[in-house]
Amino acid sequence: MQFLVDINCDMGESFGRYKIGHDKEMMEHISSANIACGFHAGDPSIMKETVRLALNNNVAVGAHPGLPDLIGFGRRNFSLTPQEAYDYVLYQTGALHAFVQAEGGRIRHVKPHGALYNMAAVNKDLAKGIADAVYNLNPDIILFGLAGSELINAGNEAGLQTCSEVFADRTYQPDGTLTPRSQPDSLLTNDEDAVNQVIKMVKQGKVTTHAGDISIKAETICIHGDGEHALSFAEKINSAFEKEGVQRINYG
Amino acid sequence: MQFLVDINCDMGESFGRYKIGHDKEMMEHISSANIACGFHAGDPSIMKETVRLALNNNVAVGAHPGLPDLIGFGRRNFSLTPQEAYDYVLYQTGALHAFVQAEGGRIRHVKPHGALYNMAAVNKDLAKGIADAVYNLNPDIILFGLAGSELINAGNEAGLQTCSEVFADRTYQPDGTLTPRSQPDSLLTNDEDAVNQVIKMVKQGKVTTHAGDISIKAETICIHGDGEHALSFAEKINSAFEKEGVQRINYG
Amino acid sequence: MQFLVDINCDMGESFGRYKIGHDKEMMEHISSANIACGFHAGDPSIMKETVRLALNNNVAVGAHPGLPDLIGFGRRNFSLTPQEAYDYVLYQTGALHAFVQAEGGRIRHVKPHGALYNMAAVNKDLAKGIADAVYNLNPDIILFGLAGSELINAGNEAGLQTCSEVFADRTYQPDGTLTPRSQPDSLLTNDEDAVNQVIKMVKQGKVTTHAGDISIKAETICIHGDGEHALSFAEKINSAFEKEGVQRINYG
Amino acid sequence: MQFLVDINCDMGESFGRYKIGHDKEMMEHISSANIACGFHAGDPSIMKETVRLALNNNVAVGAHPGLPDLIGFGRRNFSLTPQEAYDYVLYQTGALHAFVQAEGGRIRHVKPHGALYNMAAVNKDLAKGIADAVYNLNPDIILFGLAGSELINAGNEAGLQTCSEVFADRTYQPDGTLTPRSQPDSLLTNDEDAVNQVIKMVKQGKVTTHAGDISIKAETICIHGDGEHALSFAEKINSAFEKEGVQRINYG
Repeated sequence: MQFLVDINCDMGESFGRYKIGHDKEMMEHISSANIACGFHAGDPSIMKETVRLALNNNVAVGAHPGLPDLIGFGRRNFSLTPQEAYDYVLYQTGALHAFVQAEGGRIRHVKPHGALYNMAAVNKDLAKGIADAVYNLNPDIILFGLAGSELINAGNEAGLQTCSEVFADRTYQPDGTLTPRSQPDSLLTNDEDAVNQVIKMVKQGKVTTHAGDISIKAETICIHGDGEHALSFAEKINSAFEKEGVQRINYG
Repeated sequence: MQFLVDINCDMGESFGRYKIGHDKEMMEHISSANIACGFHAGDPSIMKETVRLALNNNVAVGAHPGLPDLIGFGRRNFSLTPQEAYDYVLYQTGALHAFVQAEGGRIRHVKPHGALYNMAAVNKDLAKGIADAVYNLNPDIILFGLAGSELINAGNEAGLQTCSEVFADRTYQPDGTLTPRSQPDSLLTNDEDAVNQVIKMVKQGKVTTHAGDISIKAETICIHGDGEHALSFAEKINSAFEKEGVQRINYG
Repeated sequence: MQFLVDINCDMGESFGRYKIGHDKEMMEHISSANIACGFHAGDPSIMKETVRLALNNNVAVGAHPGLPDLIGFGRRNFSLTPQEAYDYVLYQTGALHAFVQAEGGRIRHVKPHGALYNMAAVNKDLAKGIADAVYNLNPDIILFGLAGSELINAGNEAGLQTCSEVFADRTYQPDGTLTPRSQPDSLLTNDEDAVNQVIKMVKQGKVTTHAGDISIKAETICIHGDGEHALSFAEKINSAFEKEGVQRINYG
Repeated sequence: MQFLVDINCDMGESFGRYKIGHDKEMMEHISSANIACGFHAGDPSIMKETVRLALNNNVAVGAHPGLPDLIGFGRRNFSLTPQEAYDYVLYQTGALHAFVQAEGGRIRHVKPHGALYNMAAVNKDLAKGIADAVYNLNPDIILFGLAGSELINAGNEAGLQTCSEVFADRTYQPDGTLTPRSQPDSLLTNDEDAVNQVIKMVKQGKVTTHAGDISIKAETICIHGDGEHALSFAEKINSAFEKEGVQRINYG
């Protein structure tokens, strides 16, 4: 039996003179790049450069639309109608599409960012707004969402292919949701634990919670692109994959 | 001999709760709508509504990208590299494309807004940046620019179809440029004069300047969508066309 | 017995080329102007003009700080820490202060706008963040808030003078809160009803709810500055005051 | 004879999650901090933190207002009326004032940023707009500007105390202006040359140009706060001052 999995990373989150992330170095460790589209991070020039970087590295290009909140990096929930979610996702994905089109590529996926992602995981109407936007732009685009979330459901109902995302360094609750960051045990701070959790999710389709193992669908692993040890963790997860017979997808 | 001409109008320049223009009423008087894309005016929700309005009225949809200066409505020149012009036009046109695509239409033209339009009329490098952005997104898009400008030249050189724009209510100088607004005689304040200028430009390919008639290419007429008498002028120009045997293009 | 009451109105909500409200005409009907500070509406030039207008009309100048959400006009709740509320209110009130100082006036009050006002009415920590900002800038500034709200409590606890606000055209619930706009009976659509509600609140300190009269503290009446009948309602309320022996405060 | 000089540095140029500069480490090497005010860089929370940092280090607090161009970091010239310059400087300086006031300090100086600084160095009307804004807010504030510039002239004419700024690492032309960055010899890339230029400007009031020495007024030295060797250069200039008998002002 062969295990094939996607590794995605948020990219293009710099803005003007401001730099975030190790986009260039990270590209060789991932299969999908979620590129910020100018609302929570990114600007037109950064978008162009990041699209080129991804295409040159045979990394699949995805849009990473966020809330219009640059100062809060798109991480602050705000009350949004499903129509606004639809409009914001369509706008940003279209903007990224233009750069991808100009470079001869195509948008393979859309993954909402931060608060938009989290709200859409539990809010059925917002999730539908997002899924409709993606479908109406191009029904061949794959929608990324939290495994087991309303966003994945909405994508499937809209007729989109979906991709269930799991996190290496977050712990899960018995109902399959992420342990909120406000709780003390929300993070796996040890790299080995995080790698082992990923391997188990990919190979066994299970994740350990405080109430025992539960099933989880792990089609793509999210890894972080910033922070000091982002690159070393990216190397560890890839090494573990090789050793464990898990193959990272190559869209090239 | 038949005279066929396009009439264009800037549209979708509202923002959030802020309203500008009489978009709905103006649609029946024009053939091309230049829709703001969120930098100088417009927001994602306004863009969606305006695209729908244009398509429902069989009016051709165009992108109207501007400088990132909402407070100045995109009318303040600022020092911009050709690459930034390329990036900003691609971003905004892509964003509008998404709404048009979602509604089953297509973007027929791009007309830069305000300071970007004016700077590109005389700056060869900026003009090329804009033309390249349009071409790289879709070589079938028509580039609108001031008749006789560097933007028209750049569009032609890039391999785009271009459309030379004339203004009903602005006066022209012997070299074919618009009389700067800072000069006292820059505007035709009388509707009849403005209508007559347009008819002459369309039927004879000429415009009167203080040094006599000069040649001008009038493929599209720009009329304004805001201000109190925008609608009445739109009616007058259409009536004059009918009387003079000039036909407004219908893309429906 | 004499009844003395303040009438306040949101002002300076235009932005760049975008116009909202009838600021000039409204000035003669009010005693306090809440001036937008550039986050949800207003820009530096509008702020200067509005400050001048208020001072010329002997209307008290207040800051009207909002959330950084121009596209949503500051009306969309978003998750904000008390420290962010503190920072945003201090920033905006300081910016307005500069214009008032330059014109030889002073800021008399602060009234948060929209979602910030509503969230602070019920969220004790946010309310404290706002009250601390006002106090730390200048303890002589008066804090406006919904009558009976956490914001009024926080202002009092911080050592500020507070001013309890009531609404002419909104209905109240038995617990003293406003009926949410999502409910059918949230608005008094008839001017006479609205005027009568105000007179009762001012003279008797009571307001009618579906469960009978409750007590309410009415120190300032909020009236709207935009919409077609804003001016006519302003005239009606002032006429009713004259007839009923209620005096509008004059800070001149 | 004693030589006393100010050293200033741009500070608080981070934004949201984006970090620029080594503000904390740099504080011990300077006497004046120019704090960004949210237009070209900085946000309300960063401003508060930077004000606190400066006050805790006995460093004089100044406002560093810029153009409303976050994406271009305030470095792109744009056409601005003197009134807009007035409005933007007043707004931003007032916003910073609020944080300084809340912390028990005061604004000692204003130094415009980037393109606003450069345009005001040569444009008399813009310079006057800026000087008037500072004077109208508080005539005790000191205006920083390029030595010999229109901004210094305008400040003096408005009745403000001014402070003439020189640059350690930029070369000068015979007319006293900075060699444009577009020219190959615009920068002193060697630290020793930069230190020697500063010592000469401070002790002799002269700077070397390709046409010989010219007079220059050096009241404050601008050093950079970001880049890899910002801290080491700050140390070098302070060491040289100690060795050469030049004293850095201490406002504590």
